[in-house]
Amino acid sequence: MIEIFKNIKNAYKILSHVANITPIMTSRTLDSITGAKRVLVKCENFQRTGSFKFRGAWNCISRIPSEEKEKGIIAHSSGNFAQAVALVATILKIKATIVMPNNATPTKIQATRGYGAEVILCGSNPGDRAKMTEELIQEREYRLVHPFDDYDVIFGAGTTAFELMSSIKPIDLLLVPIGGGGLISGCSIAAKGLDPRVKVIGIEPKNADDAFRSYQLGKRVPVENLNTIADGLRTSVGKLTFPIIQKYVDNIITVTEEQIIDAMKFYWERMKIVVEPSGAVPLAGLLSGNIDPSLIKNKRIGTIISGGNIDLSDFFTSLKQKFN
Amino acid sequence: MIEIFKNIKNAYKILSHVANITPIMTSRTLDSITGAKRVLVKCENFQRTGSFKFRGAWNCISRIPSEEKEKGIIAHSSGNFAQAVALVATILKIKATIVMPNNATPTKIQATRGYGAEVILCGSNPGDRAKMTEELIQEREYRLVHPFDDYDVIFGAGTTAFELMSSIKPIDLLLVPIGGGGLISGCSIAAKGLDPRVKVIGIEPKNADDAFRSYQLGKRVPVENLNTIADGLRTSVGKLTFPIIQKYVDNIITVTEEQIIDAMKFYWERMKIVVEPSGAVPLAGLLSGNIDPSLIKNKRIGTIISGGNIDLSDFFTSLKQKFN
Repeated sequence: MIEIFKNIKNAYKILSHVANITPIMTSRTLDSITGAKRVLVKCENFQRTGSFKFRGAWNCISRIPSEEKEKGIIAHSSGNFAQAVALVATILKIKATIVMPNNATPTKIQATRGYGAEVILCGSNPGDRAKMTEELIQEREYRLVHPFDDYDVIFGAGTTAFELMSSIKPIDLLLVPIGGGGLISGCSIAAKGLDPRVKVIGIEPKNADDAFRSYQLGKRVPVENLNTIADGLRTSVGKLTFPIIQKYVDNIITVTEEQIIDAMKFYWERMKIVVEPSGAVPLAGLLSGNIDPSLIKNKRIGTIISGGNIDLSDFFTSLKQKFN
Repeated sequence: MIEIFKNIKNAYKILSHVANITPIMTSRTLDSITGAKRVLVKCENFQRTGSFKFRGAWNCISRIPSEEKEKGIIAHSSGNFAQAVALVATILKIKATIVMPNNATPTKIQATRGYGAEVILCGSNPGDRAKMTEELIQEREYRLVHPFDDYDVIFGAGTTAFELMSSIKPIDLLLVPIGGGGLISGCSIAAKGLDPRVKVIGIEPKNADDAFRSYQLGKRVPVENLNTIADGLRTSVGKLTFPIIQKYVDNIITVTEEQIIDAMKFYWERMKIVVEPSGAVPLAGLLSGNIDPSLIKNKRIGTIISGGNIDLSDFFTSLKQKFN
């Protein structure tokens, strides 16, 4: 068993008491269309704050020495990490400031405030968030919490696969989405630590395929095209996460926007669960035909839904217009 | 314990092996906004074919003597019952014919065919379905299966509450939607049979409030206004179901279209589950302020989601247009 794996076990000792133990769902239809023996869907859309991010945020923030967090913590995020940090800080009674771009969806800003954080809006250009965050750290001495390039965040995220694999019979293959790489690096450590025979495949949108290209080239290349619906995966893979991915992930494949939307549709219509685009990316990979069929046929496959946060205001507003 | 309750227990002995044991979900937010001690959501949207209808269809069809079903069975439905009968018949190797109006959504027709039934389309006027069904029964000697006015269908549906209440600590209040009354009549027998102190409240759309008016008047009055988004509840309460409702249901309240849509939105956005409009009606009632607060405050409340079948083609088509 690999040495670094102990950190995931340690993280889970505490996390199992504060995070939701999320359900593992199955679907006869999914087994039948894939030819798998069983597809086991780990539903982090049912995690607190609606995504796996709560795990890493808790494992990181709860370990910060009190003198470092006295003045408060800060994070920048337009999405799921913002809400996770906000809730964790509220539970742990720490002041949290989240820098969000002024074009973030109002519901996400509202949710982050609702969980108890101070939200500071910045410009929507690529460098704006980091600049504003840096200024606030200088000025107010906040402690930065990084969304993925932090070992405690990685180990926390890895408890997702640990929890999945600890509660079921052995699996043969694990499918995980890749954005900054926090989830897959943690989950690949957990998977190989629990069972070295498990294959781990990362799935990435073709329209944000930096991890795929970096993995092929053996060095990090930044994300280029960003026109993907999978808003959680628009980030480039990190300095700490990339070497872990190189070491423990068996392959990376990409999927198209259409494949992502079809996978979402399957989850919503057939399995009755609300999954955000990023969360449907592994299923898109499973259904894409891009994975070696010998890894699927008659195998037990774990697939991770990273989250379920999606703005449905327009959908429900138009329903109301029809029926009022 | 009431005599008729035995039928539910008997139905469940078999159903627990063929139906899904559906999850019971909770939400910290829901407890906090209602003031309830715990709201326990019984998720029949995760039932086979996406609604509770599978339970009644199985319990009825599996008990039909073989000579009666030799020629095949027939049902008319534009929605969830069609799919349930189709799947049950396929599993039991019985020929099933479903009469559906020619304006039923293509996905529902497709799903019913997909589960293995022959679909015969009829006109979309109110009397058309019954007429076409009657003709086919005369001509081909099919056995009719009624969607709710049949004791075996009622007892099957009642296993929903039986399963809920058997697997958790006692509840104080049970909320159930009312259409034809099959679900609530079965569930009220189950609830009072297991625990006579449980209050059972039926919730109905204001725009299809025949059960509410019938209950007040003490006699059945037909449904009038039918402009409700809750397509599963547009039916009038039945001959067999109404007396059971009069006997075992403690109250009936109504909700507006806006309240139904807001409840759906809560389930989708906050609890990440896809619930059809009819299935959100009990939660709409709980949040409406129309239930005596002393029945809610600090109480344990069971609420039943009847199903999760909703046509999302338009939603996903427009997503694809945006991202391709």
